[in-house]
Amino acid sequence: MCGVVGIYCEDEDLTPSLTYYSLYALQHRGQESAGIAVYSKGVRVHRGMGLVTEVFKGDVLSKLRGRVAVGHVRYSTTGESRIENAQPILVRSKVGEIAIGHNGNLVNYPQLREVLENEGKVFLTTSDTEVIAQLLSNLLMRYDIENSLRFLTQKLLGSYTLTILINDTLVGYRDPLGFRPLCVGEGDFGFAIASESCALDTLGVEKVRDVKPGEAVIVRDGEVEFLRIARSKRCARCVFEYIYFARPDSVIDGVNVYRARYEMGRRLAKESFVDCDVVSPVPDSGTTCAIGYSVESGVPYMEALIKNRYVGRTFIMPEQKLRELSVRLKMNVVRENVRGRRVTLVDDSIVRGTTSRKIVEMVRRAGAKEVHFRVGSPPIIAPCYFGIDMSTREELIASGRDVEHVRKAISADTLAYLSLDGLIKSVGFDEKELCLACLTGIYPVCVPGELCDNSKYEPNY
Amino acid sequence: MCGVVGIYCEDEDLTPSLTYYSLYALQHRGQESAGIAVYSKGVRVHRGMGLVTEVFKGDVLSKLRGRVAVGHVRYSTTGESRIENAQPILVRSKVGEIAIGHNGNLVNYPQLREVLENEGKVFLTTSDTEVIAQLLSNLLMRYDIENSLRFLTQKLLGSYTLTILINDTLVGYRDPLGFRPLCVGEGDFGFAIASESCALDTLGVEKVRDVKPGEAVIVRDGEVEFLRIARSKRCARCVFEYIYFARPDSVIDGVNVYRARYEMGRRLAKESFVDCDVVSPVPDSGTTCAIGYSVESGVPYMEALIKNRYVGRTFIMPEQKLRELSVRLKMNVVRENVRGRRVTLVDDSIVRGTTSRKIVEMVRRAGAKEVHFRVGSPPIIAPCYFGIDMSTREELIASGRDVEHVRKAISADTLAYLSLDGLIKSVGFDEKELCLACLTGIYPVCVPGELCDNSKYEPNY
Amino acid sequence: MCGVVGIYCEDEDLTPSLTYYSLYALQHRGQESAGIAVYSKGVRVHRGMGLVTEVFKGDVLSKLRGRVAVGHVRYSTTGESRIENAQPILVRSKVGEIAIGHNGNLVNYPQLREVLENEGKVFLTTSDTEVIAQLLSNLLMRYDIENSLRFLTQKLLGSYTLTILINDTLVGYRDPLGFRPLCVGEGDFGFAIASESCALDTLGVEKVRDVKPGEAVIVRDGEVEFLRIARSKRCARCVFEYIYFARPDSVIDGVNVYRARYEMGRRLAKESFVDCDVVSPVPDSGTTCAIGYSVESGVPYMEALIKNRYVGRTFIMPEQKLRELSVRLKMNVVRENVRGRRVTLVDDSIVRGTTSRKIVEMVRRAGAKEVHFRVGSPPIIAPCYFGIDMSTREELIASGRDVEHVRKAISADTLAYLSLDGLIKSVGFDEKELCLACLTGIYPVCVPGELCDNSKYEPNY
Amino acid sequence: MCGVVGIYCEDEDLTPSLTYYSLYALQHRGQESAGIAVYSKGVRVHRGMGLVTEVFKGDVLSKLRGRVAVGHVRYSTTGESRIENAQPILVRSKVGEIAIGHNGNLVNYPQLREVLENEGKVFLTTSDTEVIAQLLSNLLMRYDIENSLRFLTQKLLGSYTLTILINDTLVGYRDPLGFRPLCVGEGDFGFAIASESCALDTLGVEKVRDVKPGEAVIVRDGEVEFLRIARSKRCARCVFEYIYFARPDSVIDGVNVYRARYEMGRRLAKESFVDCDVVSPVPDSGTTCAIGYSVESGVPYMEALIKNRYVGRTFIMPEQKLRELSVRLKMNVVRENVRGRRVTLVDDSIVRGTTSRKIVEMVRRAGAKEVHFRVGSPPIIAPCYFGIDMSTREELIASGRDVEHVRKAISADTLAYLSLDGLIKSVGFDEKELCLACLTGIYPVCVPGELCDNSKYEPNY
Repeated sequence: MCGVVGIYCEDEDLTPSLTYYSLYALQHRGQESAGIAVYSKGVRVHRGMGLVTEVFKGDVLSKLRGRVAVGHVRYSTTGESRIENAQPILVRSKVGEIAIGHNGNLVNYPQLREVLENEGKVFLTTSDTEVIAQLLSNLLMRYDIENSLRFLTQKLLGSYTLTILINDTLVGYRDPLGFRPLCVGEGDFGFAIASESCALDTLGVEKVRDVKPGEAVIVRDGEVEFLRIARSKRCARCVFEYIYFARPDSVIDGVNVYRARYEMGRRLAKESFVDCDVVSPVPDSGTTCAIGYSVESGVPYMEALIKNRYVGRTFIMPEQKLRELSVRLKMNVVRENVRGRRVTLVDDSIVRGTTSRKIVEMVRRAGAKEVHFRVGSPPIIAPCYFGIDMSTREELIASGRDVEHVRKAISADTLAYLSLDGLIKSVGFDEKELCLACLTGIYPVCVPGELCDNSKYEPNY
Repeated sequence: MCGVVGIYCEDEDLTPSLTYYSLYALQHRGQESAGIAVYSKGVRVHRGMGLVTEVFKGDVLSKLRGRVAVGHVRYSTTGESRIENAQPILVRSKVGEIAIGHNGNLVNYPQLREVLENEGKVFLTTSDTEVIAQLLSNLLMRYDIENSLRFLTQKLLGSYTLTILINDTLVGYRDPLGFRPLCVGEGDFGFAIASESCALDTLGVEKVRDVKPGEAVIVRDGEVEFLRIARSKRCARCVFEYIYFARPDSVIDGVNVYRARYEMGRRLAKESFVDCDVVSPVPDSGTTCAIGYSVESGVPYMEALIKNRYVGRTFIMPEQKLRELSVRLKMNVVRENVRGRRVTLVDDSIVRGTTSRKIVEMVRRAGAKEVHFRVGSPPIIAPCYFGIDMSTREELIASGRDVEHVRKAISADTLAYLSLDGLIKSVGFDEKELCLACLTGIYPVCVPGELCDNSKYEPNY
Repeated sequence: MCGVVGIYCEDEDLTPSLTYYSLYALQHRGQESAGIAVYSKGVRVHRGMGLVTEVFKGDVLSKLRGRVAVGHVRYSTTGESRIENAQPILVRSKVGEIAIGHNGNLVNYPQLREVLENEGKVFLTTSDTEVIAQLLSNLLMRYDIENSLRFLTQKLLGSYTLTILINDTLVGYRDPLGFRPLCVGEGDFGFAIASESCALDTLGVEKVRDVKPGEAVIVRDGEVEFLRIARSKRCARCVFEYIYFARPDSVIDGVNVYRARYEMGRRLAKESFVDCDVVSPVPDSGTTCAIGYSVESGVPYMEALIKNRYVGRTFIMPEQKLRELSVRLKMNVVRENVRGRRVTLVDDSIVRGTTSRKIVEMVRRAGAKEVHFRVGSPPIIAPCYFGIDMSTREELIASGRDVEHVRKAISADTLAYLSLDGLIKSVGFDEKELCLACLTGIYPVCVPGELCDNSKYEPNY
Repeated sequence: MCGVVGIYCEDEDLTPSLTYYSLYALQHRGQESAGIAVYSKGVRVHRGMGLVTEVFKGDVLSKLRGRVAVGHVRYSTTGESRIENAQPILVRSKVGEIAIGHNGNLVNYPQLREVLENEGKVFLTTSDTEVIAQLLSNLLMRYDIENSLRFLTQKLLGSYTLTILINDTLVGYRDPLGFRPLCVGEGDFGFAIASESCALDTLGVEKVRDVKPGEAVIVRDGEVEFLRIARSKRCARCVFEYIYFARPDSVIDGVNVYRARYEMGRRLAKESFVDCDVVSPVPDSGTTCAIGYSVESGVPYMEALIKNRYVGRTFIMPEQKLRELSVRLKMNVVRENVRGRRVTLVDDSIVRGTTSRKIVEMVRRAGAKEVHFRVGSPPIIAPCYFGIDMSTREELIASGRDVEHVRKAISADTLAYLSLDGLIKSVGFDEKELCLACLTGIYPVCVPGELCDNSKYEPNY
């Protein structure tokens, strides 16, 4: 889970601010670290742990003047929370200075690194982004940017949406399966590249279009150019971006995230409506889905749960004696909305199930007659190797268990998930244009020990 | 705008955590400073600037062990953002140590201070809470707590909900007009006093009841006692707590805030419905009102605007060239929900009108055919002297102007406010039990230069 | 142990810097907290924990423009290290705003506070300075500054050198016994008042003269005035200022501190020379004394011990297993200077003796044939109640024990202290002009439970 | 200017503390950044900007348990003050994990980096230490540690004293010319390697011996081994370590720094004594030299200048109007010691001369009849390329100018430097065992554009 941006702005004074604001709009994609690299004669970078507003304080931004910049927000999927792994990574080599922001995860990172180590390469970080940086630097010694990206793509396996500074050239690139989104906008000041269109909106910039899977966008001397680097018979857009991860006001590959979630709610109501008095979201992620469910079912939408707006900031966790408060610190029941009523709670997904259980209990204790649980996506049964933080089957409550098991575990009166077909139709892409691995256990690229849908994936460079 | 709490807990180790978590639940009532005072042999206090989670880091809490505590979160209404004014204030005097957390504002602070200064008293802060502390200390030299509160009440004019440590005795007190809320809960560990019931819910504590206007609650040696200190022919519960300020999951004086807001939305729809395709809230404060409006009008509820979850944190403001981004940093339009549609935006209130104008423009630019604006409360025409941050008529767009003026100013196609009668009915109290001064210009206590509803207010101690 | 300053400067922009630099020159008098109060229309204050350079960072100084200012550095003698006790203290009262920086300690603080508390006064701090502020405020309601100081002096018992802002008037005052120093300088920009003349030198200001015991200096509208407030038959200049506390480049009441220490060393050599090869100081405080000892004795001066320049900053203390390193972290032996030699170590004083013991051992282990210890002052046998951090007899190794006991405790071959007479002659004042209480156990003002030299002290206001 | 340490300790809990304390003892060698790398299963590193005590706060040390560690303090000679360049540097490669702390400067860094870049290597820092890390990693793929160091030495030109972790093996290495010092100690807990012996003393560890130029010390499985890696016909011990840089309590290559400085003072007095009343050091660096001068000349040693103990901490610099205060903030004159006297000031060296000029003026203004200046080393006429911060001839007041020019510039009555011969004799090494380049302009290794003493330097591996 990360967010990337790239800015080209004629006014050197505005570039750092524009990069900063676009990262601020993508803060939901990563809260662990933030960074900006900017080119003006050479490349300078400022990185730090924490939120964008914490990393860029005081006069830091004013020292990052320049015409082109890339930025990055990071949420660690590996658990290593260290300043050394903050991005953009900046490397210097024969070809000059290269700064890279990376959203995604390389499946063949250990193999790539071993090869490079055998060639005598050394590494200063434990991040797969440094592998990309080394490979790209080497390729650029012999090839132009276009062909370097082409050969790079042949080496990398996994998900990688990149914004890159190659000296004063700004490059955006999306892997050929298109796991993670990327789009380009144009405004008065120049160009913006970003993970999600909400960042373009925040800058007041018109979206030109999404970068296609396997496509690169290059901004040089104020000119923008789209290059087709690689083709693939299928795509693998992460369906979880639509379910949970992206901001609802973003439009990804032509699909508005809000609309997709709303549709998931509607289809969920069609598939598995249960009679009730109130439809209520699990805030904030279940909100849009619950609205769709309410509209389709005709049952009034009402907030049964109120979230503390200040949650998300780290705080001193309750000691053992007060452990039961942990969910109450995050949200509270509006008793008047549930007392004596049959309540249907709608969430976008269930991962571990622990919070779901506590919420069902809390609503029941507040006086609900019945508590039904509806989920806007199918059960998550398999881990993600492409950047979402769901790493082992043990953590996944639905992995290897049926719905009834989960229902009991969360103590709901009834439980229903959206069907895979319903999900696919809600998003609107063909099955072979999506990565559904966490829901099906079949992966779009070969992952050791996992089933792989080889038949569909024949990259064609 | 402030929040106060008081905790009595047999387990000295838990007291600081319980105080901390209850302040965390009241964080929406003040983000400028936070503090906790605790008694164990003597009173110690820790205060700091910033959020509760920022002020209480590391091992600070563990140094605040004790059986009784009071806590405070503060949002400055006076603009003086200084550590000296952080609360609880702690004073030492003949009667021992007194720590006070204060929610409210004294109208006769200058007069009281002058009297005290004429008696030779000196002040270390510019806060009206120090005046209360001095008066209370002096009274306690001659009277018991009950009578001291009685005489104190005769001196104070304005709003004051207090949680107080008088050495090892915990006191909660609500002024006789009851401007600001206060409630008491009881749980396994002991007792909790808090501005809003959501704090009791967070602690997993059952609400005993609201503290009545003019009533004190005293916790001593594990026993709780309610004392009627003062009576008044009328009350003056702040209606703005119901409109905007309190958390929707709180129940204040028997009225659930969510329900009141939902009802405002329903009555608003009855009073001034205009045909449209979509009803959408101005997030987050307009949400509940919009849901009620949607249900009553039958027009689908849909989120036209998405708020950046990380707003609220201070950040580097856009320089002049990028000033137009300021609203975009806070929220963004879901274009699919508004394009080609007639949109009704619902907000809880309009204060200055500047943000409303920018939102209407943003929605219109995103393709809305019509943009109607509906407000869940009447026009705000007069300043508040009792603790809400609306200090001058100049700032209030509706002060001295008609609705048509405001409509033009915010460039909406139509604009309608909820009627005063509709608001009063939505909240469910009789008019003479509410403070409606900001909506009527008639104040429940005498304020120099303002109209005063003397007929209704005859305090009877 | 504290330092105070006051600045009057026509150029409002320079005042905060001049105050800051003069505090920087007095940093040795207190490292716990620092603060500056400045008048410009009203009085503003900035205080913080830590060194002057840490408290005044960024643009803090630029917000403290004004024509008059007082400043303070503090080292807590009471052990309460809290921001609430940082100075200057600022109080507001009938007579306006008063900011006070205080160097000293009131012996009758509990009594004064009790009287004030009985009058109904409350206190926000535990500092005796707040008592002074309350008394002064009350007096100023009825009297002019001169008479207020006169009556204040009648109430206060103990040591108090003050710099005060009474609105826009700058006052410096030294108690009638003159425990702590104070001097006045005049320069191009205006006037400076400071604890020590080294602060005047740092500002490039010519010293006008020392403020006499019982004298006030008042700077008003650019005019300076000296007023005799109180007379006393004797004085009580703290001899420890000359022995240890003051900076050697300061001149206090006409006596250069360097010269006094140098003389102590010379007299020490005359009184108790022991044959040796090398005379070496215990750095840094014994340096000047050792130089004098070397010159008088003719034995070469050589640094046997080198102090780590970075000591003084707080650091993680060694855990039990490495506890023996604690002195080694502070200083190290130059073995070549001691190996096979008879070494005389010279220190200014011995308080607890623990460090002395470790140093003697360290030098011996490094190969010294003999280690003699010479002390530039008599044994400290009684606590100080006037501001120096030597609070109980238990801590004082020489209290109730003879020199031989101390010699054994520090394991020196020989030990000798300077005689009281030698000390008095070195400083150059008559005995009745000094406070020698820590060396004689006879106090210049009545302290409960201690011997008091009443005969000599008859204040004459 | 940097300091390096290495620790081998059987007790894993003590290792981080021992490393920390030894860095604390070497703090004078670098105040910009500090870091520790420790091996326990893998290598972890913690680095930060600032003093050792600032970088290692709270519980950081307790997270660095392990049996072997290297540490580093850094003062940037290149002016790039960035966390990325903090050391120890940690790289991962085919051969495992390598952490390096480096004291010195590679003259052929650009060439080495170009070669590596041509081989496709990329760099994440701008530090020459990363070049060493890359080269060493590559060599270790094919050779054992001994031979890898041998081949590394053939590639590197310049100064490099290194402490290295190669996985769990601790290595100390000193380049064949021995520019920077390194020594080894043994204690109860295990072994310590450090830039200076004062660090061993601080740990209470006995010095085994200095590491010889071209020698490596390897600690593996609790065994220590010395290996001769390279031989050279000459050495190039930095004479400035003896003049100024090292701590006086250190013994480097058998020469006690204090003794060398003392001797410089004595020889200076012999060579160029001028009649005077007082000999005074420029504190702190001139102290030892002045003591020697005083002893030899028979003129009394007296401190004319007192340094503010808190100097060295960064603080807000005086604005233009107060610029003349800048030296006064650092030191002050003891007027009594200079008034009406002929004063000889002794300093260890003159670099730019600006401070010297201000000091002479300050002493003269304080009433000195004559001010003579004596310098314990010859004029500095050429830049250092081996780690001391004297980078350009323009900065050096004596470069290309005669003594009379300097005397006028600093406005002294007379000025004399120690002769080169006097310096060499004071230190006690043969000329061809020292690097005297900054004094002679003749460099021990080839530096482009500089004279090189090739005849003397024929490395013999």
